Amino acid sequence: MDFAKRAHDHSFQIDPIVRSLLDTDFYKLLMGQFIYEHYPTTRVTFGLINRTREVRLAEIIPESELRAQLDQVRSLRFRHNELIWIAGATFYGKERMFRPAFIDFLRALRLPDYDLKVEDGQYVLTFSGNWMEVTWWEIYALAIISELKSRAGHRLRRELELDFLYARAKTRLLAKLQQLKPLEGLALSEFGTRRRHSFLWQEWVVQALAEVLGEGFVGTSNAFLAFKYGLDAKGTNAHELPMVQAALAPDNAALKASQYELLRQWQNTYSGNLLVALPDTFGTTQFLKDAPTWVALNWRGYRPDSKPPIEAGEEIIRWLQRNAVDPKTRFVLFSDGLDVAVPGQRVRGEDIPAIHRLFAGRIGLAYGWGTNATNDFRDCDPRGETVFDPLSLVCKVIAADGQPAVKLSDNFNKATGPAAEIERYREVFGLDGVTGVPVLV
Amino acid sequence: MDFAKRAHDHSFQIDPIVRSLLDTDFYKLLMGQFIYEHYPTTRVTFGLINRTREVRLAEIIPESELRAQLDQVRSLRFRHNELIWIAGATFYGKERMFRPAFIDFLRALRLPDYDLKVEDGQYVLTFSGNWMEVTWWEIYALAIISELKSRAGHRLRRELELDFLYARAKTRLLAKLQQLKPLEGLALSEFGTRRRHSFLWQEWVVQALAEVLGEGFVGTSNAFLAFKYGLDAKGTNAHELPMVQAALAPDNAALKASQYELLRQWQNTYSGNLLVALPDTFGTTQFLKDAPTWVALNWRGYRPDSKPPIEAGEEIIRWLQRNAVDPKTRFVLFSDGLDVAVPGQRVRGEDIPAIHRLFAGRIGLAYGWGTNATNDFRDCDPRGETVFDPLSLVCKVIAADGQPAVKLSDNFNKATGPAAEIERYREVFGLDGVTGVPVLV
Repeated sequence: MDFAKRAHDHSFQIDPIVRSLLDTDFYKLLMGQFIYEHYPTTRVTFGLINRTREVRLAEIIPESELRAQLDQVRSLRFRHNELIWIAGATFYGKERMFRPAFIDFLRALRLPDYDLKVEDGQYVLTFSGNWMEVTWWEIYALAIISELKSRAGHRLRRELELDFLYARAKTRLLAKLQQLKPLEGLALSEFGTRRRHSFLWQEWVVQALAEVLGEGFVGTSNAFLAFKYGLDAKGTNAHELPMVQAALAPDNAALKASQYELLRQWQNTYSGNLLVALPDTFGTTQFLKDAPTWVALNWRGYRPDSKPPIEAGEEIIRWLQRNAVDPKTRFVLFSDGLDVAVPGQRVRGEDIPAIHRLFAGRIGLAYGWGTNATNDFRDCDPRGETVFDPLSLVCKVIAADGQPAVKLSDNFNKATGPAAEIERYREVFGLDGVTGVPVLV
Repeated sequence: MDFAKRAHDHSFQIDPIVRSLLDTDFYKLLMGQFIYEHYPTTRVTFGLINRTREVRLAEIIPESELRAQLDQVRSLRFRHNELIWIAGATFYGKERMFRPAFIDFLRALRLPDYDLKVEDGQYVLTFSGNWMEVTWWEIYALAIISELKSRAGHRLRRELELDFLYARAKTRLLAKLQQLKPLEGLALSEFGTRRRHSFLWQEWVVQALAEVLGEGFVGTSNAFLAFKYGLDAKGTNAHELPMVQAALAPDNAALKASQYELLRQWQNTYSGNLLVALPDTFGTTQFLKDAPTWVALNWRGYRPDSKPPIEAGEEIIRWLQRNAVDPKTRFVLFSDGLDVAVPGQRVRGEDIPAIHRLFAGRIGLAYGWGTNATNDFRDCDPRGETVFDPLSLVCKVIAADGQPAVKLSDNFNKATGPAAEIERYREVFGLDGVTGVPVLV
């Protein structure tokens, strides 16, 4: 009996969810340096959105716990050994990708305050301040809410039920890995930090992916796990960049051009396989159609995020061919709602092996596997309830320098922002290739 | 870090499989007292038989390990607290079932030596001496071989593979328990000591059965687990009794009568729900047909052990009715190859829910669930191999006072003993209702 451990396990004041500022998606570091260099004075507001409205989070997660976890993150600083890793590691084949000034910025980073209230059973959680400081909150806030919800579920279950819960989740993960294992040329990364069941579960999943898939597992988006286990850190960039860029555009012409202006700026900061475009912020079809030739020539990868993956992949291949670029010299990074079909079980997303078999040999392929890797507990609860089902939770930029931020996406119903602004954006970007458009006549 | 535990875990000399002489089937205590009172001078030989011939045990389990475990059991004594429990507990509603003289015998018990050699890749393991001392070896020897085989498998797997192995086995157990849970009037005991994956796994399974099934779980045959967890100890009697009785019979008439003479003797020692007949030693059909009326009147339960359960149950019901005994006042204890069908998976034995639904309301029902409860790891190995599949291993009496011991069973091919003796027994008992009889013309 380890008396000290037992006593501590039962009486510590807080079990921190985020124990290191590195426990975030690597793209936050990439975007952080970009913002630091290009937008050091831009002010933004980020807000949490729970798309799973029927789960009334404020009735499940005690507010005091949420505040304690958020406060705990504010007490964190990048540690010396973490900064050495960021400064010294080789990422995507590049040495010293992060410049000394940015490392100094990270060393001094303190997360700004948050604003938390409850409305209609949901938490209204917003973060305002300098973009280069606020941006970090996205992943910490999401991971905290996701894990606090898991913990609330744990309290409703006896020890043996939790034992069965994890046994089933492990059994399912192995079944998925056995489908992935035989895929030739698989390059799969783990992208599930934001909606993980818990930090410890994500850590276990990453170790299982590495051991079972071997070379087919190419890294994790979680910088802390990459640091801790010597894995490759993976990440690209997110909608917040084109959204802020668009919000700051002075007129409609600048608005339309902003999506490419962003790529031009990004090229100044990064190169090679870090040139992965996110084409769907204002609609993929218009993005590709109107893209300057240098986009197809310079950019190595494309990350569809709201179009069905097969449709998106085919569209990108056709567009590359139209631009006389051999698709085999480019890659698609699929990262939206991926899963793996297991015989006899419902598949909960887009089946990686099916995508892989369809595109193999036609274009480079990479996968960022998220929620269905790190939080697939559906049907695992021995009581058959849904308390461990993942939430569709996001933390998005909602304003930049006083202007509302808008996202249209490839799905008409997924647009975010004030209605009048969405309307204006739709006039500028059009609705080509957008699904779910209401039929008016 | 618990330094002491870590250091000890890596450097202890032996991890005992049997840590207490109570870690045996409760029927060994019941039969032990019976033998002590009725056959204190009878000498027997028991021998291990691995019916799974294709598994060459001597090539899998190092002989030194087997000897170390067997020697370790010989060093054990019944402890004071265990003897208090045996003497003081209420079993099957009876207080002080075990008499002081027998408790004194247990206090002094030292297991006799064993004889171990290797032939054709199999261990030839025999035990000779006084029946009342040798009989104990049965369960210890079986549990040791079964767990040493599991441990040999563990050594071939990495830690994560073992994690997945147990996750799958737990997932399957829960699926089975969810089929058992809704059965009305379920009275299920765990009977899996002899062929368990390991002691720790059996202990976990027993706790899961108790927690998930609630009142449907009525006890365990493992006396140590009953003692440790305050569960009811369950057990009846085994083939060794009629086999020894038969071997000692001076002529064919006495041989035929011996199967009932045993029941008469057993009635002198026990009563009530401990009067559970094992009808198949020399064939169930002849046993029932020729049984004296007092058998049907006195005996409360019947434990079919080699006939298909539905056939055996129907035969017992018909026989009770012919003897004007209401089957509802009697019970059948099914304990041979039971399992639970799970949707989408192969069932490996006789489906308990199917048996239960067929006989419910017609006769009392009880289940002794063994190998498929405590050692169902088939298809759980992440490498898809069979190293964790259970063995069909028995440890049977092979001679008594110099006479060979014979078992015929309800299956012609399952007979054990020297061919000439089997022939003589078949002439005495006949072949009524025996399956698998070769057609000679």
